[in-house]
Amino acid sequence: MTDYQLVNEVLARYLRAADHRDPKSMAAVFWPDATVHVYYSGAGSDELLGAMEGADAIGAAVENGMVPHPDLGWSHHTTVNPIVTIDGDAAEYDAQFLVYSALGIARPADGWPEGTSGSQGSITPIESGYVTTSLRRRDGEWRIQRHVIKHDLLYVFPGA
Amino acid sequence: MTDYQLVNEVLARYLRAADHRDPKSMAAVFWPDATVHVYYSGAGSDELLGAMEGADAIGAAVENGMVPHPDLGWSHHTTVNPIVTIDGDAAEYDAQFLVYSALGIARPADGWPEGTSGSQGSITPIESGYVTTSLRRRDGEWRIQRHVIKHDLLYVFPGA
Amino acid sequence: MTDYQLVNEVLARYLRAADHRDPKSMAAVFWPDATVHVYYSGAGSDELLGAMEGADAIGAAVENGMVPHPDLGWSHHTTVNPIVTIDGDAAEYDAQFLVYSALGIARPADGWPEGTSGSQGSITPIESGYVTTSLRRRDGEWRIQRHVIKHDLLYVFPGA
Repeated sequence: MTDYQLVNEVLARYLRAADHRDPKSMAAVFWPDATVHVYYSGAGSDELLGAMEGADAIGAAVENGMVPHPDLGWSHHTTVNPIVTIDGDAAEYDAQFLVYSALGIARPADGWPEGTSGSQGSITPIESGYVTTSLRRRDGEWRIQRHVIKHDLLYVFPGA
Repeated sequence: MTDYQLVNEVLARYLRAADHRDPKSMAAVFWPDATVHVYYSGAGSDELLGAMEGADAIGAAVENGMVPHPDLGWSHHTTVNPIVTIDGDAAEYDAQFLVYSALGIARPADGWPEGTSGSQGSITPIESGYVTTSLRRRDGEWRIQRHVIKHDLLYVFPGA
Repeated sequence: MTDYQLVNEVLARYLRAADHRDPKSMAAVFWPDATVHVYYSGAGSDELLGAMEGADAIGAAVENGMVPHPDLGWSHHTTVNPIVTIDGDAAEYDAQFLVYSALGIARPADGWPEGTSGSQGSITPIESGYVTTSLRRRDGEWRIQRHVIKHDLLYVFPGA
């Protein structure tokens, strides 16, 4: 595997950890002294909304900083069109991001109405913006050292 | 081209074949003894919704297992953030997927109202989930051997 | 960096230039004699909607040919599942595209209502289709020579 593939894979694992609200998988893609900064950039300048330090705190944030999935609900965290630059044991990953919320409809007890076809429920894009991610390779393994999220829309942390 | 690129290209061709509801293009990316399994995973466990065996049957399913496009309608089948692992003549492709439905508005016979601008119609995300795809290389060509689709939302096959 | 990465990066910069409505960044990814053709393909055949020639004209089109962002609004131009073929100093890039419009809600003067969480505003997919892009390498630099956009939905240029 090339470093390009490995770096993309770290981000792919980060995104799936967010989908699954899985603290361990999330912590595992960050170095112990990593940082995450979350900004709102939709009004022309960057406003800091939140910051985290340390892989464990970053992992815990999928439970205490994200809206939980409702019943029959799920989410997809995605990045697209990354620009990846690698310089020895350091890499920069710059991408657009989009988050989708899926909300299903349960199968009716007496079956679907005649003529029903396709997916039953709705999928809504709920977040978008840009990420800038600095990765470091230590002992042959790439992980995130510094992760900056810039939201297009104001993001309100649960319980804030 | 690297194997990484070739494997990504097989999936890209698979997705376009689904967009185009094109049985021949769809069959062409699967080996003759390939299998497809479709699951619903939105309620916490995997429920098998359908299975197909053989490239021809898989190709035919774009006509008998997918909702046809309406007039001025189209769809986009996409995968994002793949994790690709290659081991000799075998490859594993693991990705998120999203499907979009586009429905256009026809140009009015007397032209658009003054001030109209941008795209005329709507685009709706209709399906999402994960795919896990096993590819094999035979005689220098990569194709899909086994393809597993896990839907976030219950999917009802047309005519089911 | 491989040519595959470099070609993908040119497209990523093109897409961000469209997000930012930035004429200079847009012109910078096209060769001086480049062309752009925009088609509507949603009714079964290709209808030419517009054409541009020259990097400066293409750059200017982000201001005179695209709908401006409203206050608290933004857009994301994305491509997915590219098929990239490289032959010496020529490359072909073929992808699906999706454009999203984000529209934020301002923070209320007296704060968010109790229980508010997550992103505040809406994100709507507004354009989709396919791009076919021919790139050329000159003096070691990849840029776009010819770019064809095929919209699923009729696109009305502002002021048209």
